[in-house]
Amino acid sequence: MRNFKITVEYNGANFYGWQKQNGKRTVQDELEKTITEVTGETVTVEGSGRTDRGVHALGQVVSFTLESKIPCVGLKKALNNLLPNDIFVKKVEVVDANFHARFSAKKKTYQYIVQVGGDRNAVKNATLAYYPFSVNFEKMEEVSKLMIGKHNFKGFCSSGTNVKDFEREIYDLKIKKKGRIFTFEITGNGFLYNMVRIIVGTLLDVGRDKLTQENVEQALASGKREYAGQTMPACGLYLKRVEYPQNA
Amino acid sequence: MRNFKITVEYNGANFYGWQKQNGKRTVQDELEKTITEVTGETVTVEGSGRTDRGVHALGQVVSFTLESKIPCVGLKKALNNLLPNDIFVKKVEVVDANFHARFSAKKKTYQYIVQVGGDRNAVKNATLAYYPFSVNFEKMEEVSKLMIGKHNFKGFCSSGTNVKDFEREIYDLKIKKKGRIFTFEITGNGFLYNMVRIIVGTLLDVGRDKLTQENVEQALASGKREYAGQTMPACGLYLKRVEYPQNA
Repeated sequence: MRNFKITVEYNGANFYGWQKQNGKRTVQDELEKTITEVTGETVTVEGSGRTDRGVHALGQVVSFTLESKIPCVGLKKALNNLLPNDIFVKKVEVVDANFHARFSAKKKTYQYIVQVGGDRNAVKNATLAYYPFSVNFEKMEEVSKLMIGKHNFKGFCSSGTNVKDFEREIYDLKIKKKGRIFTFEITGNGFLYNMVRIIVGTLLDVGRDKLTQENVEQALASGKREYAGQTMPACGLYLKRVEYPQNA
Repeated sequence: MRNFKITVEYNGANFYGWQKQNGKRTVQDELEKTITEVTGETVTVEGSGRTDRGVHALGQVVSFTLESKIPCVGLKKALNNLLPNDIFVKKVEVVDANFHARFSAKKKTYQYIVQVGGDRNAVKNATLAYYPFSVNFEKMEEVSKLMIGKHNFKGFCSSGTNVKDFEREIYDLKIKKKGRIFTFEITGNGFLYNMVRIIVGTLLDVGRDKLTQENVEQALASGKREYAGQTMPACGLYLKRVEYPQNA
């Protein structure tokens, strides 16, 4: 029995998210089905976390075990030949038996890509969010620093979650601008439901003076959702990277 | 009664092409439905040509007439507010009563975007084609010149068309390369069924030495489809621009 770690890219537009759901097309289902096609074994794969409907991944990490003796290179090739065009396995590794894509994860990095102002882009509608206002980049950058560190992020979390502990640590938050395209890159030890989408919406709302730095401070201090900004749509969100301890 | 010319961008991934078809989602249907929502008038819109399922447009031109006195700016805004995210109206103009998006068209420019070699891109699977081989760019460029001018393009046309006259004139064909991303831009007076997709497939097949310059010359001289290369998938094809006489 070998324990596998695979790194997966997907376009979330035509999936009902990561997690298996009866009768709906999900990434987990497609992966499990394809692994069974290749190896004949029934598997349950574990993702580093769920991604919601419409959310993409550049580096989702997935673990599962197999009896099969298929080499990593052969497994990668066979999976990619059978997987649909919107999923691609970038890397296949055999790892320690204790490795678990979710429980072993130490850091996650999300990317959020949004076009600010201008005409909306119909061709890229499923892979690029759109914010139809102009914003002050420097102001956004400055307020974004408030997010760094350990905070109670309850104010940056959508309801409908069973989580009890809202403390998370953000290690890094960078915003890059290339013309109208803004890319947010956020690294943390974990993220609450819709947290990245709300952080980005809040910073954009600050950028167009709909919210102030004080509102953001209040959202962080009080844990109240109403002080934070809008939840940006799923289409701009990418799970970019999941990091594990050196020995995992 | 005013005659309108609108320029439309769309992502073809979730459409069964341009043309109305009972019960299927098409671009023509979405536009007609939305124009009716805005003006209360029942319209039939004419496109410069059909685009197939999965084919995109950066500048599809569409004409129709309206009794409504709505200004162009207001019509553009109202349409874009109601249209789905995968269609955007870039321009609205009132034109001469004789203008017809299809019959008045003089030149069309298509763009074909393909990634050559490397890992396939799952995130861009619906907007970027993939050719999994490496190619000789200079050879492709050289052979591409054979396409310029008036030719019988029967060898570069899929069956299933009622066309009798296979002569078309290609005014320009350029290939640009940026890393692994190749962009073909082809301008002509008109295109046969799948003609751009077959020209691009043929040039790529020449680039990887699957076809020779002689094969291409034979395809042009004989009108036989078997001498030309593969039909590339719809996802890489964009109707970029339609040109009309100055006074249209």
